Parts: sequence; structure tokens; C-alpha cells
Amino acid sequence: MDANKSVDVVVIGGGLSGTSAARRLALEGRSVVLLEARERLGGRTATVRAADGTMVDVGGQWLGPTQKRALSLVEELRLETFEQFSEGREHRLLRGRHHLQDDAGPSLPPQILADMQSALMEVDRLAQQVNVEAPWESAQAAEWDGMTVASWMARNVRSPMARDMFRIVVNALSCAEPEELSLLHLLFYAASGGSFLQMLEIDGGAQQTRVVGGTQQFSQRLADAAREAGCEVCLESPVRQVRWGKTGAEVVTDTGSVHAARVIVAMAPVLAGRIDWRPALPPRRLQLMHRMPMGSVIKCIAIYPRPFWRERGESGQSINDTGPLAITFDDSAPDGRHGALLGFVLGDRAREWGARGGRERRAAVVKQLTTLFGDEAAQPVEYIEKDWCADPWSAGCYVGIMPPGVITRYGPILREPVGPVHWAGTETATVWSGYMDGAIQSGERAAAEVLGAARGY
Amino acid sequence: MDANKSVDVVVIGGGLSGTSAARRLALEGRSVVLLEARERLGGRTATVRAADGTMVDVGGQWLGPTQKRALSLVEELRLETFEQFSEGREHRLLRGRHHLQDDAGPSLPPQILADMQSALMEVDRLAQQVNVEAPWESAQAAEWDGMTVASWMARNVRSPMARDMFRIVVNALSCAEPEELSLLHLLFYAASGGSFLQMLEIDGGAQQTRVVGGTQQFSQRLADAAREAGCEVCLESPVRQVRWGKTGAEVVTDTGSVHAARVIVAMAPVLAGRIDWRPALPPRRLQLMHRMPMGSVIKCIAIYPRPFWRERGESGQSINDTGPLAITFDDSAPDGRHGALLGFVLGDRAREWGARGGRERRAAVVKQLTTLFGDEAAQPVEYIEKDWCADPWSAGCYVGIMPPGVITRYGPILREPVGPVHWAGTETATVWSGYMDGAIQSGERAAAEVLGAARGY
Repeated sequence: MDANKSVDVVVIGGGLSGTSAARRLALEGRSVVLLEARERLGGRTATVRAADGTMVDVGGQWLGPTQKRALSLVEELRLETFEQFSEGREHRLLRGRHHLQDDAGPSLPPQILADMQSALMEVDRLAQQVNVEAPWESAQAAEWDGMTVASWMARNVRSPMARDMFRIVVNALSCAEPEELSLLHLLFYAASGGSFLQMLEIDGGAQQTRVVGGTQQFSQRLADAAREAGCEVCLESPVRQVRWGKTGAEVVTDTGSVHAARVIVAMAPVLAGRIDWRPALPPRRLQLMHRMPMGSVIKCIAIYPRPFWRERGESGQSINDTGPLAITFDDSAPDGRHGALLGFVLGDRAREWGARGGRERRAAVVKQLTTLFGDEAAQPVEYIEKDWCADPWSAGCYVGIMPPGVITRYGPILREPVGPVHWAGTETATVWSGYMDGAIQSGERAAAEVLGAARGY
Repeated sequence: MDANKSVDVVVIGGGLSGTSAARRLALEGRSVVLLEARERLGGRTATVRAADGTMVDVGGQWLGPTQKRALSLVEELRLETFEQFSEGREHRLLRGRHHLQDDAGPSLPPQILADMQSALMEVDRLAQQVNVEAPWESAQAAEWDGMTVASWMARNVRSPMARDMFRIVVNALSCAEPEELSLLHLLFYAASGGSFLQMLEIDGGAQQTRVVGGTQQFSQRLADAAREAGCEVCLESPVRQVRWGKTGAEVVTDTGSVHAARVIVAMAPVLAGRIDWRPALPPRRLQLMHRMPMGSVIKCIAIYPRPFWRERGESGQSINDTGPLAITFDDSAPDGRHGALLGFVLGDRAREWGARGGRERRAAVVKQLTTLFGDEAAQPVEYIEKDWCADPWSAGCYVGIMPPGVITRYGPILREPVGPVHWAGTETATVWSGYMDGAIQSGERAAAEVLGAARGY
């Protein structure tokens, strides 16, 4: 970075929200510098190359049919997509028993499935009463934000086995345990994605579509477009200090500083809290950044010569209440080059398994896949994993969660600019918050704020 | 600071825990550097000079008879103490009505007082089942940590007015709302102070004794003793980065760096999370630092020529469910030089009033004092306040709180050293956690860890 540069806008964070904002602003003729702490773009999307050359997503990977911003970006950037494989039977390892879903009918006692279904529908019924722009305005906001999801489950999910399954659903959506989450924040999350049921679905839901070559391409290509329009993109440039005031802000990195009329902070709130803000941010903003801890997740991918489970009429999917992996999916290469199983270690399990050695974790993951999918799963040709909690530039994934009491008290200032500083990041989205689609929305919204704003404030 | 110095121990944080640790280590012959971010020592204790020369505590101020470490430090440092004034009648502004406690009997309906008393006793009954060394081992830990204090109150505090009073009690102890707090963490807090009832008391409780000249003297005199034993004390030296490894750590400030065999981090967890740790801390430690937000409090002191309320047989105390101040106390000078009323703006009220201008806040505080204590309260000769949430080196007070799900999942690593790094701060105390006494315990414990440890680890 050229030391002591002066531009219209500095964007902090090179994930989907930051690159969306930077491109938009650069195309509108603003001078922009994008600062990214890591040695790569993409933030919570990250794509790595497998031994056979296939690009594998170790971060966010799916798109759904109602994620209009993400899908139109796919078209605009001329990316290719393919459908998530989901045909065939599903495994369930619950309470020490192995159920294999049969095409002929359900594998679990009908009462359990009915309890589960009615709990999911009740969440959606409540979520419909939540305004995604202002969840704190719901009639029952104080009550819902005053309790954990666990407290709600204790009263609303009848059978213990349905509660176990509901817990896994919560784990899968939030990377946290029901004990850690505000009911109102979960309802907001469901409402922002359209419905809880839709978030869980593959076909027609949030796990329907994958991107050939991986989702990190979104940020890379957006940054390319921004660069072409004159934006300077600086990697390995963690921002240490922001000195802000009436005439803009001085954004300080290890290697120099940039002056900007406006700053867009495109990162999870808790990470923005590590910056030394001068003068101090207003007290409520300062405290907000300490009240949205990141979820806990390790993503694990085992690669095999072919998707052997498909040959047996299995989908590669499973739900598990023991073992490191809570849920699994088919993650095979789009061109059939290899088969792969993808598993998520979530919430408590991510905390437990994140403290162990990589070798022990890999062995346990492969053992669980073998229990589920048979002996052929015992010898993956490659194993790839990413513990997002161990990455200091994320501190967890997918998203900043809200414990009880936070959204009603700090939610109203989540998107409120502070002097020349605007806030992006998927946590600030109102549609598909926590997803790539929400990240894009937030970046575009923050860019629009900057474009619409007068010089002073 | 001498650049590139090398010492046995660096202590980060010049509050009570850090200065306790530094003195102990220096007296044991260790070479020590103490680094403090602010331009003063004391951390969450801070004493300012009133116009008439009286030293006024705008931070922690009281000691109780079971706070043995703090009381023995008073003796050792030859500080003078005096008793908190508490004689006379107390005001209550609840649900729009002004009750003045009468010597002849209670001012509130007996049923309300009975509900309140039984709720407080129930908290103590549960707290007795909590092991302060390991709260997560309690038989009902999962259940208690899975719910908010608000959920518990909804079931266990019968009348609405008793619930209002219980809320103020929770506010006063934690600077947070019942919706934000894990029940188990509140029980731990009560257990660590001996009992919930004792924490609330003045005579015989946690508000019994004050220090002539203010409590900041603790840290100042401890630092003086450490200096005399060779410790270097550096103010205005915020630590930006800690590079740690097998041979110790390099602690980097804006003006230079120090190498140390061991590091003691004597600050609230959330503040330690702002340091750039290289390599990254283990995932659970990293996430813990994002899961203990600070409470919200503004401390306000109005000074008058004399304590006129005493002349009417009033204690200066009040409990209020409206207005900025939740509770008030007599805060008159020990030598009778002036009378003073002290009020706390807590939890939601601190967030609301912290966002307003200082003039508006002062007017509202003085108006409330006038409603409570009559027209003589309308014209203070001096008004002093401290919004701890606006102080970036505290980000709130008194203490880091725990939302549901945190103490069972992250509590076990709260005091666990990471390589050469040891953890102090009142949040890590087992006795009087959150108080000055707990800060001292934590500093002495961390110093003992360092003294007891072999060179390698």
C-alpha cells in the first residue's frame, strides 16, 4: 500500500460483503482501497485445491433458489453451478441405534417424526411474526429474547429423541447449542431466510446448488472487477487502528495508513471489536461488538475414488447424535473425478474435537464415516478439514450468534453508521443473514449508504 | 520502556490483579515489567479529586467483612477505612408510587416483601449447590446454564412488583438485565461472594466499608512496592501483540517490546481478546474471550454542602424502577467536609442514558435525586460521573458477564495457562469474583503459578 494515500472509501475486509461494496463503489467512480487481513480474499468462503485438482469449498458452499443476489452474481460473473446430490436413503445414528431411512417409509418412530415436524412448524409460525428489519418490534420480542432456544425446546419439543434431532438442526443452522442462543435471534434468522423449513432443505432450500470451482471465486472476481475500476486491493493488511472524525478517517495497518472520507467495515462484529478505535466508539456500539460471539464449526471432507454410497441407493446424508460429525452430505466433484463425503463438527462437538490433535480427529471422522457408509469409507484418498474456530481472522463460523438479551438491546444499532463508518458483513443483513446472499446484500447496502450520503455527516 | 528488554515476567494490566501479581513476583526476586494501557493505574478502581479536595471513587469502592484479602491489604498498605453510612429510612420509587420506609414497619405490601425474600433465599439455596472452583460440575449445571435469569424469575418470583425489585437487585449486582445472564453464572457469582443476601447487605455485607482517599490507592501502592523491588511500571503502554512460544513471549506495545519467560494477563477476558496473539490462541480460549461481555454502568455522584437527608432520618438509599438511577447511597466525605449522594445507572438504563448527552443525563439524575430527597438536592455544588461503557480500556463494568451456555462450556479453561501465558483478573477468581477481593486473589494465584512453574512447560 502506498503510505499516506487518500481515497473516498476504505473497505475493511475482503470477503463477499467487502468485495461487493468495493466493486460497486469503484464502478461508481469512487476511489477505493480494500484492506484484507489474510493472504487471500473470500473471508468465510475458502476454496482449496484437492490432490486431483478439484476445487473444494472448506467454507460456505451452497446457494438456494430464493437467494436472488447470490444467483444473479453467479450469472453476472459467469460462474457455473451444479445441483447438490441428494438422492437415496439417509442414515440416522441416534441414541445408539443406526436407522437407515427406507424408501418405503420412515425409519424412525412416527411419533418422533411428528414431534419434530410440529416443532419445526411452530418455529416458522413464530418466525412469521418477526419483522426482519426490526425484530425487536415483535409483540413478544422481550419474552422471546429473554429466553434461550433450550428453554423453548424444553416446553415445545415433546419426546427426548425429537429434542436430540431438534438440537442437531439448531447446531447445523447456527454452529451453536440451543443453550447459547436467544429464541428471538433464531426466529429472526429463520425469518431472514424465508422459513426454518426452507433453510433445512436441499431441493428448493438453502443447500440446493453448488458452484463449480468453489465459492471463493465470488470474492476473487468481485475484487478483480473492483481492481479494473481502479480499486487498490491489499492483502495481508490487518487494520490495527481507525482514527475517525468529522473529515473522515485514518485507517492504520502494519505497513502504512490510508485516509478516507468514508469507511466500510465488512467483517463480523466481534472482529471489528479488535480494532483500536480513536476516539472510542459510542458505548453501545463498543459493547455490541463484544456481544456477538462466533459459532463453532469444523468442516471435514473425505475424498474417495468414487461415490460408492450412491451405488447402494444412499444419498451420503446422515444425522448423528454421537461421533464428531453431526451431519454429512455427498460432496463429490462436479465432473465425477472423485466421490467425497462432507461432515460438519458443530457446537459442543467442535469445541471438544477442536482441542484434540488433527490426527486423532481425522481418525474419529473416518471411523464415523465407516460406521455410516461401510468399510469402503475407511480409506479416503485425501482428507481435508478446516477448523474455523482456530482461524484468528474468523474466530469461528458461520456467523456471529446472539445470546439472549442482545438483539432487542443492541440490534437497533447494528447498521447505524458512526460518523464516517458504515457497517457491512452478513450479520447486518436482513435477507439470508448468515449466508453468502446476506453478505452480498450487506455490502451493497453499505455501498449505497456511502453513495447516497452527503460529504459531511 | 527500554526497547528489547528481557525479563522473567511481563504483567499486562495495572489494576488490582496486575499490581498484586507484579508486587508478589518482584518481592520474590523476579524481574518484572508491568504494562498498563491507560495513563493511570487502578483499572476498574479510579479515584478523582473533588473541588474541595476530597478523593471520590468513581469505580469500585466498597469492602465487606469476609473480603479477607482486601482487608489484609488495607492493613498492610496502612490505608484508613470508614463505615458506609446506612442509618435511617430508605426510599422506594416503584410502579409510579413513592414509598418511604418507616421505622415502624415495612413500606411495601407484606406479600411483595415476602415474595422478594423467598426468591432471594431460593437463589442462595441453589447457590449452595455450586462449587465455586468448578460450577460446571453441579448436578443441575446443564439446566441452570441453559436458561436466563429472566426465565428463572418468570417461574420463581411471584408478584410483578417483586419481580421489578428482583430485577433491580440483579442490575445492582451484575450491571446487566436478567435476560442477558445465565442462571448458573449468577449462582456462581453468589456462591463466590458467600451468599446472595450478603452481597446485597451494607452492614455485614459487601457494601460495609470504604477507603479514605479512595480505592485506587491499592493499585498505586502495590505498584510502588513492586517498583521498589525493581519492577518497571509503564503507563500508556497498550499491548498490541503477543508472540508466544516455547521460550516465552515477546510482548509488543506501541513504543517497544519486552521479552518475558512468562506473561500474566491481568485484564477482563474481552479486552485480552483485542490483542493480536501470534500464533493464534487455542480455539476455545479465543472464543472464550468473545463470550464474556462487560456489564453496563454509569456511576454518578452529586456533592452537597452537607448530608441534609441525614437530618431527616434518611439513609440516602433508594431503589427506583424509573429514572436513570436504579439505586442510591450516601457517599459523603469521611471527614464531614461535604455530603454526597451516589447513584448507579445500570443495565438497560446505562445503555439508554449513555447514548444521551452529558448535560441531559446530569439534569435527569439531579431531578431524580430531588424527587427522592427533596428540593435541597436540586443544586449540587459538584457533579461527578463515570460511564464505564464509554471507556475503551474497560468497555463496561463491574465485570465480564456470562450469557447462558458459556460457563459450562468455557469455564473449565478460564484459568488454564496457554504456554507461557497465565490468566488473572477478577473474572478468574473463585472467591468474591467480580470484586476487588477477587482481583487480588486472581493476581496472587497467577503469581503463584508463575513462581511454582518450572522454566519450561
